[in-house]
Amino acid sequence: MFTQMPKNQPKTRIFLGIDPGTHRVGYGVIKAEGSKFTLIDQGVIEKKEKGYAADQLPFIHREIKSLITRTNPDVMAIEKLFFSKNQTTAMTVAEARGVILLAAAESSVKIKEFTPNTVKQSISGYGSADKKAVLKMVSLILGLKDFRPIDDASDALAIAITAALIGDN
Amino acid sequence: MFTQMPKNQPKTRIFLGIDPGTHRVGYGVIKAEGSKFTLIDQGVIEKKEKGYAADQLPFIHREIKSLITRTNPDVMAIEKLFFSKNQTTAMTVAEARGVILLAAAESSVKIKEFTPNTVKQSISGYGSADKKAVLKMVSLILGLKDFRPIDDASDALAIAITAALIGDN
Repeated sequence: MFTQMPKNQPKTRIFLGIDPGTHRVGYGVIKAEGSKFTLIDQGVIEKKEKGYAADQLPFIHREIKSLITRTNPDVMAIEKLFFSKNQTTAMTVAEARGVILLAAAESSVKIKEFTPNTVKQSISGYGSADKKAVLKMVSLILGLKDFRPIDDASDALAIAITAALIGDN
Repeated sequence: MFTQMPKNQPKTRIFLGIDPGTHRVGYGVIKAEGSKFTLIDQGVIEKKEKGYAADQLPFIHREIKSLITRTNPDVMAIEKLFFSKNQTTAMTVAEARGVILLAAAESSVKIKEFTPNTVKQSISGYGSADKKAVLKMVSLILGLKDFRPIDDASDALAIAITAALIGDN
């Protein structure tokens, strides 16, 4: 029986959350040890020069690959896209999403996808929570006081937390 | 004056046309010498095992890269996507499109995008031409009798021809 793992030792897992946009991709990395979640990294991938959207793709792909190498996540969680208002934007975001999913698959990182409602529901308890409520819960869950994440990184952290809460089985 | 290039020598250019789908990506490669177009290659990139769409992305990316290495195109032409009926499918196609655009950008191949209407218009003279009419004109333009392209490759060849006809300036 000594070959068994200690039962109460929580497994440490790294979750990378991604909030994809056309010119900005928010990311957040957390460490989950049992029910204790801590912030590892957060930020926004953004190319200074705008211009033709397809030209951004190699940049986004490279940056995500390097983020994965740096933080070595067990799971990459990304928001499921829904097309509603601007379809041209939605299309460009989906293309960016394609190269982000590619980077994860190339690095053999498990991919999880969640709807915005699932993220809000799992973070705050209700699916129609606003940005402020989500940020408040993200700060609370990560044990950070007066936390001001870099722009889009708040949603990315919420997605990472969702993946950690829901589990990846 | 002997250092000048002969004026009537038409420039040879290679055009790669892509018709992206979720599980199948049609391609067609043509050579354009002045107004003479010839078929170089055509086919469909398709993974035998279906399943989770994101798992197809590394395969599509690799295959397009190898196609570009093999045929060395000056221009890659791809159809502009429009969302109409099935938005989940459109989203998956846009992700595939993302990794195809990435492959072209990584290989420094110029990218051209055309609407389905522009393709039909430039090939057959009217924007509402059906698949059969497009195939007939593709065969005629490429000087092929009884041409039966591999499935989705016909549209891909039509896109490649459109890029050659419209020019890439």
